[in-house]
Amino acid sequence: MTTEVQTDPIAALNPPPADAQTRVSRFMRELQDSICQGLEGLDGTGTFREDTWERPEGGGGRSRVMEEGGIFEKGGVNFSEVYGSQLPPSITRQRPEAAGHTFYATGTSMVLHPRNPYVPTVHLNYRYFEAGPVWWFGGGLDLTPYYGFAEDAQHLHQTLKAACDRHHPHYYEVFKPWCDEYFYLNHRQEMRGVGGIFFDYQDGQPGALYRGEQTGTAKETSERLGPVAARTWEALFAFAQDCGAAFLPAYGPIVERRQPMDWGDRERQWQLYRRGRYVEFNLVYDRGTIFGLQTNGRTESILMSLPPLVRWQYDHHPEPQSPEAELLTVFLKPQTWA
Amino acid sequence: MTTEVQTDPIAALNPPPADAQTRVSRFMRELQDSICQGLEGLDGTGTFREDTWERPEGGGGRSRVMEEGGIFEKGGVNFSEVYGSQLPPSITRQRPEAAGHTFYATGTSMVLHPRNPYVPTVHLNYRYFEAGPVWWFGGGLDLTPYYGFAEDAQHLHQTLKAACDRHHPHYYEVFKPWCDEYFYLNHRQEMRGVGGIFFDYQDGQPGALYRGEQTGTAKETSERLGPVAARTWEALFAFAQDCGAAFLPAYGPIVERRQPMDWGDRERQWQLYRRGRYVEFNLVYDRGTIFGLQTNGRTESILMSLPPLVRWQYDHHPEPQSPEAELLTVFLKPQTWA
Repeated sequence: MTTEVQTDPIAALNPPPADAQTRVSRFMRELQDSICQGLEGLDGTGTFREDTWERPEGGGGRSRVMEEGGIFEKGGVNFSEVYGSQLPPSITRQRPEAAGHTFYATGTSMVLHPRNPYVPTVHLNYRYFEAGPVWWFGGGLDLTPYYGFAEDAQHLHQTLKAACDRHHPHYYEVFKPWCDEYFYLNHRQEMRGVGGIFFDYQDGQPGALYRGEQTGTAKETSERLGPVAARTWEALFAFAQDCGAAFLPAYGPIVERRQPMDWGDRERQWQLYRRGRYVEFNLVYDRGTIFGLQTNGRTESILMSLPPLVRWQYDHHPEPQSPEAELLTVFLKPQTWA
Repeated sequence: MTTEVQTDPIAALNPPPADAQTRVSRFMRELQDSICQGLEGLDGTGTFREDTWERPEGGGGRSRVMEEGGIFEKGGVNFSEVYGSQLPPSITRQRPEAAGHTFYATGTSMVLHPRNPYVPTVHLNYRYFEAGPVWWFGGGLDLTPYYGFAEDAQHLHQTLKAACDRHHPHYYEVFKPWCDEYFYLNHRQEMRGVGGIFFDYQDGQPGALYRGEQTGTAKETSERLGPVAARTWEALFAFAQDCGAAFLPAYGPIVERRQPMDWGDRERQWQLYRRGRYVEFNLVYDRGTIFGLQTNGRTESILMSLPPLVRWQYDHHPEPQSPEAELLTVFLKPQTWA
């Protein structure tokens, strides 16, 4: 009988630097700062109100919300840094190596609900986890228009693709369909919007880039492109930083283009109706929302993402050939935007 | 080695009659009919629109919705009867005997969203399941006011208690706290309303009346009162019928009392805000909603329960001592109403 010391293959290959948590949480705070500053500049009149909070089990956050701004009817940008004795089952099911370990998680998330129905809603979330032998980055950015404009979707995707391409030639190709498949309302058989990028469980290990649970284009593309080589913690952190920096250049020009467009009650009613899908997604599927609610996060900060006013109407179908119908038939379909 | 024929103890003790499905589904249909007729009478001008639908995997339903009625801004009453190859994990986790068996389920559910903020929202759902060796009844009725009136809560509870007491002296004592604990928003640490009754997994077996997953008053009361004797299928069906018949007498007088009350923007804004809690409960916790979405039910029928217009506001707190604050501090607390 031989006894061997088991070295953890994951940690041994690719450990985070000693100051990883400090550096990532500083970046997440600075991302919140730069986004809020940029959005106040864009909005013109609205300002963010800040609440800091502590989580009884460990850690806390800094929530910033704008209500009744010039452009943004409601916008929330949240930074949090939490730790605790164990991750919830929704995560350890997908990352069994993390089970039974204490964890650290930090991230910045944002949802904006503009008043003008021609200005799309946008969501951003970047996050970093450590739990025992493992660490990973996750997050993404996606756009949810109420009326479709190809040039908006193209601009957003091109900006995100450029950020991805600076780091790995496969990132955009896999993270774009991952976003399409993640922000999907199964009970509606409907995409949430025109997508963007989404990734999770990026720990730098060589192998499949796609680490999701679904079969589909993201998984197929990841398999077709083949395994990626090991990536260092530094390389992934640099990627997350570039993704964060891409937000304002990706979204700002879209707001400036759409905000001057006139709208009336018809457009407003459609926007309120479609906001219902946003609520359905966030409460039924969203990993960040479920993580927050399961780990005793601050409810007001987690649900800051919900729209200010929402409408549900039974069995509503927009008039065929209308711009509202076109959103569904043309824009909410997976397609090449960049 | 001996081989014995295993008789199933549950089915052997208390089998349903041969025409159980036919009788229960007829009752559920008739309950939908009588509720809709009663509500049209109460509303005065609104009428129900009916959609029948089929579920590809088996079964179907009859959805009825009223929009923009005289009293009811939106109201949905749904009958469904579905069957399939297996129940979803959300149910078999609690009823392991049902796993691996085909199932049959029928039920009627209803949610009403009145326009006048002084008229409370109400929810009803009664359901019946068969799966392999087991069958059970479940359901309940609960009231969600926007402004609290003790006489309304008392009237509703007294009416339900009387229906319960006709069938078993322990029913109301256990099903009342079960309702308080089931219609609870954990992430808000808040009751949904002033309760009513709720029960599940009532299969007539002798033993604990409470068959839920939580520790709390319902479980403690059930243990304190001791095990109940076996109850026949007929007895439980008669109880479900009496519960259904109690709805109009329980709710109608409340509507008639509150509908004449004047209201303005302040009351409307509070109602829209509180409706957000209803959405949060239904999408995050409600067993019926999750069952429907997991079993490929008709989404428009399942989500018919969502309010017509809803508002979310960040970190909103009503003025202390106001009627709005009183709802939270006085009415949304478990208490004796009957």
